[in-house]
Amino acid sequence: MTAHLLTIGDEILIGQIVDTNSAWMSRELNLRGMRVNGKSSVGDTREEIIQGVEHAASTADVVIMTGGLGPTKDDVTKKTLAGMFDSGMSFHQETYDRIAAFFARIGRALPAAMRDQATVPDKALLLPNKVGQAPGMWFERDGKVFISLPGVPFEMEYLMSAEVLPRLQQRYPAQPIAHRTLATAGEGESVIAKRIEAFEDALPPHIKLAYLPSLGQVRLRLTGVWNGPLVPDAQAILEAELDDKKMALHALIPDIVYGYEEESLQQAVGKLLLDQGKQLGTAESCTGGYVAHLITTVAGSSVYFPGSVVTYSYEMKSKLLGVKPDSLTRFGAVSEETVREMALGALDTLGVDVAVAISGIAGPSGGTPEKPVGTVWMAVCDRERTVAVKHHFGRDRLKNIQLTGVYALNLVRQFLLGQV
Amino acid sequence: MTAHLLTIGDEILIGQIVDTNSAWMSRELNLRGMRVNGKSSVGDTREEIIQGVEHAASTADVVIMTGGLGPTKDDVTKKTLAGMFDSGMSFHQETYDRIAAFFARIGRALPAAMRDQATVPDKALLLPNKVGQAPGMWFERDGKVFISLPGVPFEMEYLMSAEVLPRLQQRYPAQPIAHRTLATAGEGESVIAKRIEAFEDALPPHIKLAYLPSLGQVRLRLTGVWNGPLVPDAQAILEAELDDKKMALHALIPDIVYGYEEESLQQAVGKLLLDQGKQLGTAESCTGGYVAHLITTVAGSSVYFPGSVVTYSYEMKSKLLGVKPDSLTRFGAVSEETVREMALGALDTLGVDVAVAISGIAGPSGGTPEKPVGTVWMAVCDRERTVAVKHHFGRDRLKNIQLTGVYALNLVRQFLLGQV
Repeated sequence: MTAHLLTIGDEILIGQIVDTNSAWMSRELNLRGMRVNGKSSVGDTREEIIQGVEHAASTADVVIMTGGLGPTKDDVTKKTLAGMFDSGMSFHQETYDRIAAFFARIGRALPAAMRDQATVPDKALLLPNKVGQAPGMWFERDGKVFISLPGVPFEMEYLMSAEVLPRLQQRYPAQPIAHRTLATAGEGESVIAKRIEAFEDALPPHIKLAYLPSLGQVRLRLTGVWNGPLVPDAQAILEAELDDKKMALHALIPDIVYGYEEESLQQAVGKLLLDQGKQLGTAESCTGGYVAHLITTVAGSSVYFPGSVVTYSYEMKSKLLGVKPDSLTRFGAVSEETVREMALGALDTLGVDVAVAISGIAGPSGGTPEKPVGTVWMAVCDRERTVAVKHHFGRDRLKNIQLTGVYALNLVRQFLLGQV
Repeated sequence: MTAHLLTIGDEILIGQIVDTNSAWMSRELNLRGMRVNGKSSVGDTREEIIQGVEHAASTADVVIMTGGLGPTKDDVTKKTLAGMFDSGMSFHQETYDRIAAFFARIGRALPAAMRDQATVPDKALLLPNKVGQAPGMWFERDGKVFISLPGVPFEMEYLMSAEVLPRLQQRYPAQPIAHRTLATAGEGESVIAKRIEAFEDALPPHIKLAYLPSLGQVRLRLTGVWNGPLVPDAQAILEAELDDKKMALHALIPDIVYGYEEESLQQAVGKLLLDQGKQLGTAESCTGGYVAHLITTVAGSSVYFPGSVVTYSYEMKSKLLGVKPDSLTRFGAVSEETVREMALGALDTLGVDVAVAISGIAGPSGGTPEKPVGTVWMAVCDRERTVAVKHHFGRDRLKNIQLTGVYALNLVRQFLLGQV
């Protein structure tokens, strides 16, 4: 089965919003063995919608539209679709009641425009939207499926997960498919590729490996598609096979794999701290609180994270962390001596078991020939030992801060595991 | 002139990356009066590229392609385009020399694949890529323009700014156009719309107002398009007219406008601190360092930002900020009393002139009937006075942190200006 994704609305065409919906939908369809073979965007006039839908239908089995259903704009989209599928429009009491209940729940008066939101094409199979107003709509014509969803990301995600994906899987039964993802940090794509070359070359043709890189991290996704005759326990056999491959792959790179599936590095570090019954603190200079922010994006982090100090100035490094003024003047704020003293100071100041300290030159200015922009020192310690490392990142301030955050968390992880 | 944006590459179709290029390009074209009337994405096979380009050309005057030019994939894209435009392929010494110089500059060996990167269609006008490898290409056929650019965002942005936009403006001279943007924080779209209703209604037809909302902020963009006969100083007249409108709009909402054009809230706060010769510190609980992170994303912030304390635990609030244990037990960590004491404590601990303190329930758990998830107290103070305010945000942890960050910075801004 092939799908084409069509976004409707001027806000995409004028660049007011970045289309994140399409990437989410593509990923979810792909994970279920459904191929997206095209995407497009059109404005919200009748002519553009017709042209967009017909073009999409000419290239794929299923057309999934998002947007054009807001209370000020839904008229043209719905009427255009009704026209294309030879359908009248009717008021739909059930949808209206659901919308009214939704507004009652959030304590707001029901706007008059909601009568129009509940007026829908007769021929549409309605997909109830439990998290918003406009329902999703499912049309069929000449053996092709046309689905219209609201553009608000969490409404689209709800309707895709609860309604669209299960129905598509039923209508277009695919070969059993299974996935396993390993999350790694600290090595680039090419280094990983070399380390796992023999494993990758030996994979059977029905299992593929994908590299999904992001800043400082690479996720490795194994995808298996059943390729024999369909036996009742095909899915289970495939899942077991992928579990084996996952473990084999993990065994090749145990030092860089921090988790599976969607787990984030900050979640992995949090889990280790919980397991070991330890508390962590951060002492940050160039990252300016970014590492603490990453850690505290995880719900429940207060159990293992009592706090942090951000010491941008020399004075704060000495006052709050006890860094010797002599170290700062002799070696500079960006030096092994300083980050070691910062980390040790943080143990006491924050009363934690493990501390990580970071000092670097985020840029764009402040570099010297010996310490160019992107030079970062970091140290992690407990009461027994301290490990310090130096990195050289690039020239972009924000990227340097973000990369440093990933490397600092990974250093904490390795330290907790005794790998450094 | 109308443009169609076409992305080439499977990584978009499988949802591996979010297409941010299209939004950037749409915005830049729009600002120059060029309309994007469609966008689409195709995979990187010959058939898909041909079909995508022909479809795009059937709907617009200019087709701008991105992607499909990386060293492992450029072959199919370039050969397909050469075929479509009846062109041979030749090695281009100048491009090769430029690529070689680029590799020499970053201190890496020149890969053999770079000979292919420098082999390009004869009929293409080459757009030299000074920040990467693959050059941009400009083709013409039957009065339409076809432009191919690399997909790496900063290479695309460089080529658009340096080569494509100036050439398009020359080839499709548009009416003079001008923009003015006011950046606001602290009020939603609908409240702003009511406050400026009379102004908006009285705008002449050739000046439009757009609302560009983001988390906790709204940018108001005035766009004027010259609509009379073209006189030599049309642009200057239009610019002056927009300056007038900008000032008139600013005068209606002086309390919420923090800057113009691309200025960020953290830049605006930094500028005020510099102007007033003051230093700021943050004392953060639920934001976990996010406010300090925002402040330190601005280059040069070390002048006015010596540091921050993140006090997630009761103990740290008392130890580092001198919050009375009695206040914490009687009123709780999320209370007016606690944030006031945190802010005053931060003045001394961080040795700053102004401090902002934040404590709230980011969620998803930790709420109570009296203090539901999303309840946030914040206080700002100097040696003379303290202002505390309470907010109620939503249920999503990360959004609560981000919204709180914006509101906290805006509170500091208003405090520095004596507006609160």
